[in-house]
Amino acid sequence: MPPEPLTRERILQATEEVLRRHGQAKATVVDVARMLGVSHGSVYRHFPTKAALREAVTGRWLDRTTGALADIAQDPAVPAAERLTRWLDALFAAKRRKAGEDPELFATYLVLTSEAAEVVDAHIAVLVGQLARIVADGMAAGTFTPGEDAATTARAVFDATTRFHDPCHAGEWQHPEIEGQFAVVRELVLRGLCAPARNAAPWPNAAAE
Amino acid sequence: MPPEPLTRERILQATEEVLRRHGQAKATVVDVARMLGVSHGSVYRHFPTKAALREAVTGRWLDRTTGALADIAQDPAVPAAERLTRWLDALFAAKRRKAGEDPELFATYLVLTSEAAEVVDAHIAVLVGQLARIVADGMAAGTFTPGEDAATTARAVFDATTRFHDPCHAGEWQHPEIEGQFAVVRELVLRGLCAPARNAAPWPNAAAE
Repeated sequence: MPPEPLTRERILQATEEVLRRHGQAKATVVDVARMLGVSHGSVYRHFPTKAALREAVTGRWLDRTTGALADIAQDPAVPAAERLTRWLDALFAAKRRKAGEDPELFATYLVLTSEAAEVVDAHIAVLVGQLARIVADGMAAGTFTPGEDAATTARAVFDATTRFHDPCHAGEWQHPEIEGQFAVVRELVLRGLCAPARNAAPWPNAAAE
Repeated sequence: MPPEPLTRERILQATEEVLRRHGQAKATVVDVARMLGVSHGSVYRHFPTKAALREAVTGRWLDRTTGALADIAQDPAVPAAERLTRWLDALFAAKRRKAGEDPELFATYLVLTSEAAEVVDAHIAVLVGQLARIVADGMAAGTFTPGEDAATTARAVFDATTRFHDPCHAGEWQHPEIEGQFAVVRELVLRGLCAPARNAAPWPNAAAE
């Protein structure tokens, strides 16, 4: 039987396993090559530098749940408000699962994401794009009030739920009251999306808003 | 002229200066006593342990802007929606100022707050209490829709603006787009507060919300 071909995905799987065993500070390309039974030159043919390999494995980790979220965002059979609820629930659940199931690997990836701003930005852009799809559908259906464009509004929904998906808050996700706090924020955001734009306030400074 | 009496406040001022010069890892009670020209026993008469001193200086730092925010929260002459806008603006501005003016001292206090969960919780409770005052006034005036009680709603407003006051996001506060993103979140939250409760959705799972 010929050996299994060396693919990007196999290298990334092995890299994650090396990270799990050794932590990000000690993991090397040689460790990855050894685990795969190949030379480190073979790994470098797929990822020209160690930095490129670290970025790719970080992106893979970040995007692991993006597919399931995309399915929720794109389901035209579900009304937009309900779709938004499901999407936010699924995002928070996925992040908590990642943080809770393997805290050491999570901590490792936290360091990697702090070094890979472009990878993180791209991940956030994908998520906000999914939200924008839901927001645009909700505006088209008349459920959500048109105001800012869908992309700007989607970014605001993402920002307003930061505490429930940004890994820097992972330490708060085990608090007993976090589920209830999440539900109230989610409802506040949904009410804001469904609400008519506020009237021009009679207050003199309102024009500065 | 008799020497200035040794007060808690003088000790805390000196402690902050020692933290600024030496960083939190190296600062000692002896450094604080030396700066004040007193024995370290005199400092311990006001703060029984080094940990108590560190907690007190952290609380002082956290609460430095609380007074100005309290004045905004309690001003009955300003309508609740405008008061909420001003309060959120003032909180974000104060946090950005702290992070931007003296980044090293800010980093020092970040470490201290991570070790002082009770002090941080007390600080957050004060801020959410101020918000609850505004929310309750807005509900009484009919500007904000009654729903959850004022304290729960206030916590949701605080949580929904996490990205714009929690120090773990300080690195994002210099981005050119942050002001605009803050304004859209603030408006979304205000619209949510002013909006009627959403109708029971016709979607079968809505009961689970």
